[in-house]
Amino acid sequence: MEETFVPFRGIKNDLQGRFMCYKQDWIGGLNAGFRILAPTTYIFFASAIPVISFGEQLERDTDGVLTAVQTLASTALCGLIHSVLGGQPLLILGVAEPTVIMYTFMFNFAKSRPDLGPSLFLAWSAWVCLWTAVFLFLLAILGACSIINRFTRIAGELFGLLIAMLFMQEAIRGLINEFNVPERANPASAEFQPSWRFGNGMFALVLSFGLLLTALRSRKARSWRYGSGWLRSFIADYGVPLMVLLWTAVSYIPASSVPKGIPRRLSSPNPWSPGAYENWTVIKDMLDVPIMYIIGAFIPATMIAVLYYFDHSVASQLAQQKEFNLRKPPSFHYDLLLLGFMVILCGLIGIPPSNGVIPQSPMHTKSLATLKHQILRNQLVATARSCITKKSSMGQLYESIKEAYQQMQTPLVHQESSRGLKELKESTIRLTSSMESMNAAIDESVFDVEKEIDDILPIEVKEQRVSNLLQSLMVGGCMAAMPFLKTIPTSVLCGYFAFMAIENLPGNQFWERILLIFTAPSKRYKVLEESHTTYIETVPFTRIAAFTIFQTVYLIVSFGITWIPIAGVLFPLMIMLLVPVRQYILPKFFKTAHLQDLDAAEYEEVPATPFNQATEGDLGKTASFPDDGEILDGLITRSRGEIRCVCSPKTRSSTPPTGELANFQRSSSLPDRVYSPRIRELRGYHSPQGVDGKGPFSPAEARESNLSNGG
Amino acid sequence: MEETFVPFRGIKNDLQGRFMCYKQDWIGGLNAGFRILAPTTYIFFASAIPVISFGEQLERDTDGVLTAVQTLASTALCGLIHSVLGGQPLLILGVAEPTVIMYTFMFNFAKSRPDLGPSLFLAWSAWVCLWTAVFLFLLAILGACSIINRFTRIAGELFGLLIAMLFMQEAIRGLINEFNVPERANPASAEFQPSWRFGNGMFALVLSFGLLLTALRSRKARSWRYGSGWLRSFIADYGVPLMVLLWTAVSYIPASSVPKGIPRRLSSPNPWSPGAYENWTVIKDMLDVPIMYIIGAFIPATMIAVLYYFDHSVASQLAQQKEFNLRKPPSFHYDLLLLGFMVILCGLIGIPPSNGVIPQSPMHTKSLATLKHQILRNQLVATARSCITKKSSMGQLYESIKEAYQQMQTPLVHQESSRGLKELKESTIRLTSSMESMNAAIDESVFDVEKEIDDILPIEVKEQRVSNLLQSLMVGGCMAAMPFLKTIPTSVLCGYFAFMAIENLPGNQFWERILLIFTAPSKRYKVLEESHTTYIETVPFTRIAAFTIFQTVYLIVSFGITWIPIAGVLFPLMIMLLVPVRQYILPKFFKTAHLQDLDAAEYEEVPATPFNQATEGDLGKTASFPDDGEILDGLITRSRGEIRCVCSPKTRSSTPPTGELANFQRSSSLPDRVYSPRIRELRGYHSPQGVDGKGPFSPAEARESNLSNGG
Repeated sequence: MEETFVPFRGIKNDLQGRFMCYKQDWIGGLNAGFRILAPTTYIFFASAIPVISFGEQLERDTDGVLTAVQTLASTALCGLIHSVLGGQPLLILGVAEPTVIMYTFMFNFAKSRPDLGPSLFLAWSAWVCLWTAVFLFLLAILGACSIINRFTRIAGELFGLLIAMLFMQEAIRGLINEFNVPERANPASAEFQPSWRFGNGMFALVLSFGLLLTALRSRKARSWRYGSGWLRSFIADYGVPLMVLLWTAVSYIPASSVPKGIPRRLSSPNPWSPGAYENWTVIKDMLDVPIMYIIGAFIPATMIAVLYYFDHSVASQLAQQKEFNLRKPPSFHYDLLLLGFMVILCGLIGIPPSNGVIPQSPMHTKSLATLKHQILRNQLVATARSCITKKSSMGQLYESIKEAYQQMQTPLVHQESSRGLKELKESTIRLTSSMESMNAAIDESVFDVEKEIDDILPIEVKEQRVSNLLQSLMVGGCMAAMPFLKTIPTSVLCGYFAFMAIENLPGNQFWERILLIFTAPSKRYKVLEESHTTYIETVPFTRIAAFTIFQTVYLIVSFGITWIPIAGVLFPLMIMLLVPVRQYILPKFFKTAHLQDLDAAEYEEVPATPFNQATEGDLGKTASFPDDGEILDGLITRSRGEIRCVCSPKTRSSTPPTGELANFQRSSSLPDRVYSPRIRELRGYHSPQGVDGKGPFSPAEARESNLSNGG
Repeated sequence: MEETFVPFRGIKNDLQGRFMCYKQDWIGGLNAGFRILAPTTYIFFASAIPVISFGEQLERDTDGVLTAVQTLASTALCGLIHSVLGGQPLLILGVAEPTVIMYTFMFNFAKSRPDLGPSLFLAWSAWVCLWTAVFLFLLAILGACSIINRFTRIAGELFGLLIAMLFMQEAIRGLINEFNVPERANPASAEFQPSWRFGNGMFALVLSFGLLLTALRSRKARSWRYGSGWLRSFIADYGVPLMVLLWTAVSYIPASSVPKGIPRRLSSPNPWSPGAYENWTVIKDMLDVPIMYIIGAFIPATMIAVLYYFDHSVASQLAQQKEFNLRKPPSFHYDLLLLGFMVILCGLIGIPPSNGVIPQSPMHTKSLATLKHQILRNQLVATARSCITKKSSMGQLYESIKEAYQQMQTPLVHQESSRGLKELKESTIRLTSSMESMNAAIDESVFDVEKEIDDILPIEVKEQRVSNLLQSLMVGGCMAAMPFLKTIPTSVLCGYFAFMAIENLPGNQFWERILLIFTAPSKRYKVLEESHTTYIETVPFTRIAAFTIFQTVYLIVSFGITWIPIAGVLFPLMIMLLVPVRQYILPKFFKTAHLQDLDAAEYEEVPATPFNQATEGDLGKTASFPDDGEILDGLITRSRGEIRCVCSPKTRSSTPPTGELANFQRSSSLPDRVYSPRIRELRGYHSPQGVDGKGPFSPAEARESNLSNGG
């Protein structure tokens, strides 16, 4: 993206780009049919459960002024607005932990001032929101988001791991609380006696670990050996909500022999309870706030604005990583502008504002990638099967598949995708040559259609607005379902927090490098045997370790800052600080080529380009339940960022990519990524240990191959 | 084995055979040095923990007449005698669940008779033991064990699964008991109040699942990626006792906030407590037993004799399965004779007798196979490394390794093992041809010595007496360590029972066929991709399923019988009945060739043959901690019974193998088994889907390959 700060240019570009595909966003989503419910439910749960927990936390910290009803309302309302009017529909909005920390700080401040007090807290917050919105407008209009690509992988992944640590901390804290008497509870009641508290805590351990382990297992259901295909698909798609249901049911098993209140369950007022409405009319109190506080509100507002600017943009960036091969343009500037309006709205009706959330936003994209993969795959398999029943030759089969595949693609990527299909041809030739001639009829027992097609399919994301809209509506529906939600044990929520933290570790290169450091030297060759990121072959191990240790120390410092009572809200500044650190300090310690590889995928942004609307979305109707999506599961969680940038850093900075070229860059990485290791091998891809790649990993070889790659 | 029933012939053969290698049994064990402690500790725990639990069960069921002190004493004493005087030192002796059931029945009978009563129970049991010994002597002398090979795999594996079910049942029952007030306890004490019972039960769930999951993980430590080699080896070898220690420590964490007695711990008198000695002098009461009961004692004695005959022989058989490539002869007849003497001894000192136990005996052999593998491997790797530092060519390297390997082998298997080395040559040629000439110096970065050697090493077992002797002594030592053992929570024992049940499932073909039935048809090709048993390729799926369902129903019926109050002790008869069922009924429903494959590995027994004493055992001193034994871990647990029998069923039954021929048969399977799938591929091993073996599994292909194999 160009770093020009001409007012309104970024917003204009965003609007133009997204306007081109707005209609397709809806049509594509609707065409996917019922299948869209899988990613929708997945994201709904990932979105609603933390929001409910944060609501509970807020209720505790604000003496009941704000509750889960308000956090749910904010998430639903902002999500609804964003899914309809927003730029990037892959971005998921919600009330996040930093907002909760911020509001707690503001409440404590208001409570301590006699001329504000808890009664004027919401009115004062409204002023803070107004100020925040002003800053956000300024940032959006002046194009501040155009420097978002200076937040390289190092910043995004560090922030991702920090969020994971906060989630894990919340899980552990929650479990410890299960052994203690909660605040504001009556310690005389039966369930808080030492004996029952011990039982409650132990039961909480069982429930939370039960949920964590089963949920992690269920996500891998597609690669299970047992059970029929549709069952495995169903469990993989809906496993997490199913497990919440299951463990909630388990929590009722000892109900007859324990006092009410064991295990502890979610507590929140129903939206129709008296007092749950007070916040909506806050606007009439706003002028009661003393003028000094109205002006002073700009101080917390700057912090919130910085936080939202970073959080919203990075969440959006992580949802649009290069490896997802997105086709539609991004919309950073316009989304920030819209966020400003939503912050005002939330402020005026007295609910905490929402912003783009991690890890839900990248989870959303991943789940849509699986969906798109399944749709594409079903179509190609059907084509191939019909060829086989017609007793076509291998050559004919190849032609038909190629045709079918190209029909579903945008014209822009034709030359790329057909490269993927050449692989299919090669592998089929290899198969047939061992038995028969190329023109003989194919037998499905010999040619495993599904496997071959899985091997060549690229990662593609079903980009649309329907899943985001539906999940927002479902979050809104949660408010009505509050009595039902209140049956969920808090310990199950703890397990869910831990699940969220762990689920998002694979694919994070920072995390994978930490693991690499702990990998025994004799086992490092195993990393090479799998699909792996480029830096493993091009950067010496000691440099990888040094870089990772630096990043880890930085992470621990950032995490430590969140523990400081009030200054803790400044922790986003640590992430901001990474931009100059990356640009000016790190190059003094690491070679440019190494940094290039360790901090790859600069999230090339694409200016608006003509978007062909007669593309995808034509397949939704033919889609049925898939047999198997595990290959993709592996690809999207394991092999992120495997692509070496096609363009050198120089060309990238000197010639800002425009139009077709930019789009080509975004999609050019496609064929390199999608080959299975087997095919890579056959193509003679560079591997320092020959075909098997089984040699022990040694820095010497890495350097050698580094040279040969010219890095 | 010849089915001749000439009196004493079997015993004489056994004695001759084992006498030849008796000295080597000791020397070989001592030469292994400290390394022998790994299998010893492993088996000690596998042996002692159930014996302690059974002791607790007996104490409950015999009103404290027999306790863990007696079961430990019996296990230690019989183990000691067997390891020194016994025939097959791989066999592990211990007090088993059937013995406990039997003694409980006898105690209830004695208690119900006024002229016996609990006071004469032990004296009467002594008479039962005498009778049992008489029957065992008869069976041993008349050569009853020579029909042991009619107990084919179907009987052995069914019994193995039945024992696993009994273990699992004990684990579940134990966990449920943690929620209830135990019998003979004072229900008024604090820890039995409902609230604390709930907490205790939940804590028990945490401890037992914690132990189960961590113990299962720790056994796979060799293939972990993280941590240094020696640490992974240490965890894999001693992980289970470490985990028992760990979870016992965890059980003390809440000690300050819970009443004493939570969690419940092992209860047993110390051997030096008053009353623990009463049983030793039972011999003086024996003549007080009314004559009618002395004669009547032969009724339970027949049942125990049948049980011991079967249990002892099958445990011995499972410890000597064909795939372990044992070199030393078996000793069924003599061991049964010795068991008779031990039963008399135990009877006279008033302790329950021990017999050969499952699954500890096969576990013992497996752990020794790992040990032997490590010793061999270290020697070969050292040889290869010294060649590389001397800059030898690939050809020279091959010659040196071949020489080193043959030095460690018995002369009998020379021609076999060198076939394995030819593979090494081929794979090295393949490697070198891609880069340099055969005579160029080798570089270790190119030729991964350790991996290549792992690929060619056969499974071999360190057959010796030291591990058995040491573990018996350690079990004896347990009696002194009773105060320490009493800190182990009963729930940790439950977890250990579950671990024992699960740990022994892989490798059981019956279990693997059950899994195969539940495998989705689209995933069956995965079974073919791994190393797999022959029947998968030769028997149509429907026939596999039918056979497995029959076996499952039989298993459930057998398990059901153990629930019947008194007739339950007859359950071994169900296993006995399998002999005629297999011989006369199953052939009516299944083709002979199919049965042959499904029920493969008929445990060819080898009559005594001249045994060269100048064999193995010369390597122990050079052994150091290994880097890696995971390949073997995989081989011995996963690929059992992969060998197709070399001789056809006809030759097997008509010409009883003798002398060298028999030994050849036992060892001839060796080279076929040890190739890694990669090497098998390169050799062009039969695989219905070409090189990759990735095609979907179809019965049609299976039939086809069945025909081509002439089966």
